[in-house]
This record gives sequence, C-alpha cells and structure tokens, in this order.
Amino acid sequence: MSHPSAGMTRTPVCVVRPMTDSTLENREWHLTRRPEGGLADDDVALVSTSLPPPEAEQVRVRNAWLSVDPYMRGRMRDVKSYVPPFGLNEPMTGGAIGVVESVGDGTSLEPGQTVLHQKGWRTAAVLAEDNVRALGDGGSDQPPQRYLGVLGMPGLTAYVGLLEIGGLNPGETVFVSAAAGAVGSAAVQIARASGASTVIGSAGGPEKSRGVRDDLGADVALDYRAEPIANQLMAAADDGIDVYFDNVGGDHLEAALTAMRTYGRVVMCGAISQYNATTPEPGPRNLFMAVSKRLRLQGFIINDHDALHPAFERDMTRWLDDGAVTTRETVRTGIESAPDAFRELFTGGNIGKMLIQLDHPTRT
Amino acid sequence: MSHPSAGMTRTPVCVVRPMTDSTLENREWHLTRRPEGGLADDDVALVSTSLPPPEAEQVRVRNAWLSVDPYMRGRMRDVKSYVPPFGLNEPMTGGAIGVVESVGDGTSLEPGQTVLHQKGWRTAAVLAEDNVRALGDGGSDQPPQRYLGVLGMPGLTAYVGLLEIGGLNPGETVFVSAAAGAVGSAAVQIARASGASTVIGSAGGPEKSRGVRDDLGADVALDYRAEPIANQLMAAADDGIDVYFDNVGGDHLEAALTAMRTYGRVVMCGAISQYNATTPEPGPRNLFMAVSKRLRLQGFIINDHDALHPAFERDMTRWLDDGAVTTRETVRTGIESAPDAFRELFTGGNIGKMLIQLDHPTRT
Repeated sequence: MSHPSAGMTRTPVCVVRPMTDSTLENREWHLTRRPEGGLADDDVALVSTSLPPPEAEQVRVRNAWLSVDPYMRGRMRDVKSYVPPFGLNEPMTGGAIGVVESVGDGTSLEPGQTVLHQKGWRTAAVLAEDNVRALGDGGSDQPPQRYLGVLGMPGLTAYVGLLEIGGLNPGETVFVSAAAGAVGSAAVQIARASGASTVIGSAGGPEKSRGVRDDLGADVALDYRAEPIANQLMAAADDGIDVYFDNVGGDHLEAALTAMRTYGRVVMCGAISQYNATTPEPGPRNLFMAVSKRLRLQGFIINDHDALHPAFERDMTRWLDDGAVTTRETVRTGIESAPDAFRELFTGGNIGKMLIQLDHPTRT
Repeated sequence: MSHPSAGMTRTPVCVVRPMTDSTLENREWHLTRRPEGGLADDDVALVSTSLPPPEAEQVRVRNAWLSVDPYMRGRMRDVKSYVPPFGLNEPMTGGAIGVVESVGDGTSLEPGQTVLHQKGWRTAAVLAEDNVRALGDGGSDQPPQRYLGVLGMPGLTAYVGLLEIGGLNPGETVFVSAAAGAVGSAAVQIARASGASTVIGSAGGPEKSRGVRDDLGADVALDYRAEPIANQLMAAADDGIDVYFDNVGGDHLEAALTAMRTYGRVVMCGAISQYNATTPEPGPRNLFMAVSKRLRLQGFIINDHDALHPAFERDMTRWLDDGAVTTRETVRTGIESAPDAFRELFTGGNIGKMLIQLDHPTRT
C-alpha cells in the first residue's frame, strides 16, 4: 500500500496524525522452545522489531500494561485446545492496555486514546481497529489496568463461574481456591456481594491468607502451606460446601469433593497446581462421590460467555464504586520483567492481578 | 396387637383371608460382617425366621424374584450415603417381586396379586401396603421380573441418565460402559431409540461384546479385556463422544474424557471397577480436560427422579412392544444362590439383569 511522503501536500487530517509514515521501535517476547516443567530462560527471547505505520483501518499502539495469566502456560504447549498454541519463534499474545500512537485512514479512533487489546508480551503493536476496544467510553473512572483484572477477563471469569456455571444462590457456602490470585480474589468478593452465607478462601502463606480474610472479606481463610487443605477444609466447612470454585485442582479438588454438600457444584476453572507438570497427575481419589452427592462438575471457557459481559461490567462497576469489591494488583516494571512475572504466578509471587507496567504512561 | 383366635366368631371378610393367623416360614440373608474387598462367604448368613400374620394395612408376600445390583456393595459399607448402610445382623434389602399370600384388615390388595417391593434378599416378607406396588394394573403384558430390570430401577436409571442428566440430543454420539449389564444394556437401546447417531458400548470378553452389537444394536462394541479401552475408544470414536454414560469409572472414565467432544456430558452413574477397592483408587489423570472442552460431569441418584417415572414406563413399554428394546436376564435359582449371584456382578458373570428366581411361581 502506498503512503503519502512527507513532502506531499497533506490534507488537514494529517496534521493531527503526525509521524504515521515512520516506523516505531518494538520489543516483543517470542517463545523459542516449548517449556518442560516451568518456563526456563532459554524458552523465550526478547526480540527487537520496527513496526510500520498503520494501514487503513489499523492503529499503532504503545503498550502501557501487559497481563500475565496462568492460562498462558497452556498455550506454550503444542496441544490442540480451545485456543491455538503459541507459535515457536513468534511473538506471544495476551491482554494489554495501550495508548494509540497513530492511526491509519478510515479509523474512528484517535491518537492518545487508551485501548484494550490482545497483542501483549510486547511494547508496541499494530492492530486492526476492530481488534481494539477504546476504554473510558462507559463513564467509568477506574484506572485502565483494571480492565486486565477485576474489570476484565479475570473478573468476568469469576462472575460467570460463580453465577452462571456454579449457579450460586443466596445463603449458600462457597469455597474459592487460589483466593489471593486475580480470579480468586474477584470470586471471593463476588460471592460475598451476591449473598453467599459463608465464603472460604485458600491461599499460600500467612500474609496472603490474612489478606483473603481481612482485605477481601472471606469469613475463613485457609493457608494451604500450613497444613493439608483437606484437614482444614473439613474443620472450616463443617456444614459442607455448595459451590467450589476450583483454580487449583489436585489436593484442593479432592478436599472439596469430600466437603461438598448434596447437589453441590464444582466450577472447574483452573488447575494451577498441574500446569507445570511434565507427566499427568492422578485425579481425585474420591471423584465417585459425585454420584452419591449428586454433584455437578463443569468446566468453562470465558470466551463462550460474551453475552454476560454487559451485566458483568454494570455489576462490577457498581461493586467497585460502592466498595463491595476492592482491587489488588502486583506490578512488575519493564518488558524485561515479563518472564519472571509469569513464573511468579506459579510460585505464589503475586497478590491479586499480576501486571507488567511499561514506560509509556496512560492518560489517566 | 391382639389377633382373633381360630375359635372366635369371624366376620365374612375373614373367609377370603384364610390362614392370616398362622406364621409363614422365611429365609433371609443377613450381613454379618462388612466385606473387605469382595463379598466373602463369612460376611453373610442365611437365617430362618417365622413371619407373623400381617396386621392392619399390611400384606404378607412370598417372593418370586430377587434383584441383585452393584449399588448394594455400597450399602455393605459403614459409610453415610444417600441410603443408609445395611445394618449388621439384620436382613439386607433390595428390589423383589412377590405374590401376596395374606393381607391384614383394611388393605386394598388381595392374595394372589403380584407386587413389587424392596424387601428382597429373603423368601417372604411382611410389608405395609403402602410399601408395595401391585403390578399388572397398567395393561402391560410384560413378565413381572421385567419390573426389576428394563421396566424397573435399572431401566429408569438408564432413561434418566441419558435423557435428563446427559441431555442426549438426536444425532449425537454416545458411549456406554458396562453395556452388557442391566443399566448399560438399557442405555445402549434407549440411546438408539432416542436418535443417537452412533452408539458405542464396552463389555468384557468376546461373547458379551458381540451381544452388545448384535443383540442390543450398538454400532460398535469394544471388548475391554482384549486391549486397553483408551486405544479402542479413540479408534472407534474418531469424531468424539457427546455423551458418556459411565458405569465403570477408572480407565473407562479416563479414556472417555480424552474422547469427549467440546460441550460433552459425562453421566456419572456407577463405578463398578472400584466398588470392591479396599483403598481409594486415583481418579482420571485428564480430568482437567473438562475445562478446555467445557465438559459437564454430573452424578445422580435415581430416587431423585420419580417425576420421570410415568414418562419412562410409557416410553419403555412402547419400546418393548415394538421391539426397539429387548431384554436380557441372567437367572440364578434359589435363595441360597444370592451371594454368588451378587459376586458375579463384579466378575462379569451376568448378561443383562441378574435375577434370583425363587420357588414360588407368579401368576403370569
């Protein structure tokens, strides 16, 4: 596609679109090898590129915030799943917040607008306008990085999981594992805001579990590192659990099955205890309890539930405004920090949403 | 309660109720010890008793057919569940067909009527009239023992499991394990009659698997003794399974999870591979596939689904009448045979419904 040179006569619109004819520096993380176990330094490489100007109906974005999420571990495997695996020697992708730097012909966005998109793991990106969402139109005064966390995919995952998949009713008892994580901390608070009678959360270590109770408002917080979760859960939930929101799998799922009440629901969201496993681990020894207790175990993928997005944003914005939901974020700085930040998800390094902040400030 | 002696003046109603003042011999199986592993001879004892005449609103029944079912293994354990465990040194219970031998005052039943009730594992019983169901009122010309099998609890279990819990839609692919058993053979045929596009059944040994295909009409029958079920299932269901009706657990469940299509449903009905286990066996290593495939695994207990009983009897009677469903029964004879017949359920000794026939013929 041809592009007007700097010396040509320019129409007035070009005045507010400077430098669209120059390239933009970008650094991006490539997956160079599929990890065995945890992500190793040699599995990824930071690659410098120059991005061309945006073409028609494209925008070029400087990223300000990158999301790192446990589900990305699955995309590093060469396994057919609900999303294709990351390609080798290609940039990885993920949620990101950026600021529009320049726009191509025919776009409705303008430079300076803050946008949400999926070309993360990099400092800048060129995207079709249809693949970015402008933030700030809904009247929310929330900082933009919230749209990677409690107002974004993790928050929606908690909302859909508890209310749609789990069918939570007021007065029921809820157990949330990995309750200090991005999805878990949203789930604990949504359960409270939705009328659960008792909310139990688990987290690793005294600081995190204290936060689950004191900051998120769980009735009981269990430190799974202190004692086997099964023992603690039986003591905490002596009347049983109606909805278990599973982010962990393994010993947590087995403990929850034992504690489930008749007609309980297990929301199968994640199994972070197993994502780095090199050989598959055995499932719960008590799965057959699902028959005698008439349990429903159901897995879900958030992409299937776009229809609930408007209700979610309405409810979550209200909960944030009235203080029913608070946000917690762990922020690492600079594109270089992304692999370490990702690894920290599996070693318990984050409280709340794990974010990478880049050097380009957003407008907010 | 006092009872008129033979010499007293008797009202005319007593003329058609002879011998209500005499006792009836009964032999019944008691659980004397909780089995470790499979049922041992010393875990049970055959006890002779004399049954008193029925009191008001009671009937005394000579049993003609006894049901032995895998779920009874669970009741031999001292574990709180959806039904209480069998008491030690008490008669065990289970489905039975009998003939009314005498009736107490105020009953609407008459001697000679064939009834279905739950005081099995014995040759005769006294029951409250409310706890027996008279057969033959619905115009069915099916032999009464069908009401312990395809027209009874096993048939209803298959019906509810496939259609209500599994939500089977026409055109879907169904896999049924233990397809030569009472529930499984009904499930295979109900799936066909309900419009499944492909029905796959597994059974142990060449004779049984041939029967699943040739007699029950499965499109594919897998002999799980010939080769690991996982290998066979992947070859048989190359487009995947929509509904898995699980009677087995263990390797069958793991194989099915791998073969399930997106949005598939696992009907958790039984886990006969594990009922005799003395230590809990690990669950499926691939349970987490429920997330990426958005699977629903749901356990159920047939007692919760009485509301579907009329629809079931209507549909099943029609299917039997028009030949869409055929019945298969394995019959052992005499009260002494009950423990052996029960053990055969776990070693593959039965094809279709396992029954004990006693010495008292029914009217049919």
